[in-house]
Amino acid sequence: MDIVLVNPEIPHNSGCAARLSAGLQVPLHFVKPLGFSLEDKYLKRAGLDYWAMVELSVHDNWDACLSKLADGSDRPIHQRIHLLSARGGKSLFETQFAEDSILVFGSETKGLPAEIMNEYPEQRVYIPIDKRIRSLNLANVVCLATYTAMVSAGVDLPNNDGSHQRDPRADDGVRPGDLV
Amino acid sequence: MDIVLVNPEIPHNSGCAARLSAGLQVPLHFVKPLGFSLEDKYLKRAGLDYWAMVELSVHDNWDACLSKLADGSDRPIHQRIHLLSARGGKSLFETQFAEDSILVFGSETKGLPAEIMNEYPEQRVYIPIDKRIRSLNLANVVCLATYTAMVSAGVDLPNNDGSHQRDPRADDGVRPGDLV
Repeated sequence: MDIVLVNPEIPHNSGCAARLSAGLQVPLHFVKPLGFSLEDKYLKRAGLDYWAMVELSVHDNWDACLSKLADGSDRPIHQRIHLLSARGGKSLFETQFAEDSILVFGSETKGLPAEIMNEYPEQRVYIPIDKRIRSLNLANVVCLATYTAMVSAGVDLPNNDGSHQRDPRADDGVRPGDLV
Repeated sequence: MDIVLVNPEIPHNSGCAARLSAGLQVPLHFVKPLGFSLEDKYLKRAGLDYWAMVELSVHDNWDACLSKLADGSDRPIHQRIHLLSARGGKSLFETQFAEDSILVFGSETKGLPAEIMNEYPEQRVYIPIDKRIRSLNLANVVCLATYTAMVSAGVDLPNNDGSHQRDPRADDGVRPGDLV
């Protein structure tokens, strides 16, 4: 499983996605342009002290991101990709995901670029919401879609036995910009 | 289904929960003390223009909240309540929810008060995360748990047919404080 944020704008949401990425040990990808600097304090803060545990890649563009993702599996990329969209496609809860699925999310205000949406028209996934609401918060959607996809794929979720064991790297003050 | 936030601290998270509440047409409850005013601009902003569509109740304390919730179903409250906790209990994905389930979430820094946790020891639900991560973002957890519970309960999700139809009340500038 991979999480891809295309042109994210709000640092708090991307930081939340990083916290999730650390909590599930799922790689996180940002595709430029970003609406914030990797040194942004809200980005760092929303990811708390977990940045050292995040497998973060920042890509100059969508094609560069695709090239890197293609290395992750022998399955064709067009079968692995799922485009999370506010409208249209298949419900998140009726979609079958696999261990090598790639979850792609657009920006908070613009969603995914039309060229990406048009390239994989069969791969759109929507989250059911009242038609009067345009969309949910991006970080919320990333969390919901990632867990739902992992359960659908039958991937083992982290074995939470009730304990919390602080990672010593949490004290290193690792910043997002240190990772790329 | 009801969403209860006990002593929420961060207005952005409660605003996100309101946006979710509007998107799923699920009632939202805040139990005082709150870490913010209902006039807080970040609370309003995170709920966008959807406050008029939120069924919000603000309760002076937990007992007052329970009294109101008890009216919602004939089933005993101790069977309906699910306490979302970072650690311990049963996995969210192995828990059976029902249409009259009540999802209870604690504060961002302190979780749920011990007296509530101890009152319903069998009703704890955790979200699987790597043991090195203390918890996920509260708004993310509210979104994930609410959708997962609705799917588990077999509740019909909103029928999103691909259209967005702005509610005329969105232009009324309704604020959270206007609702209670």
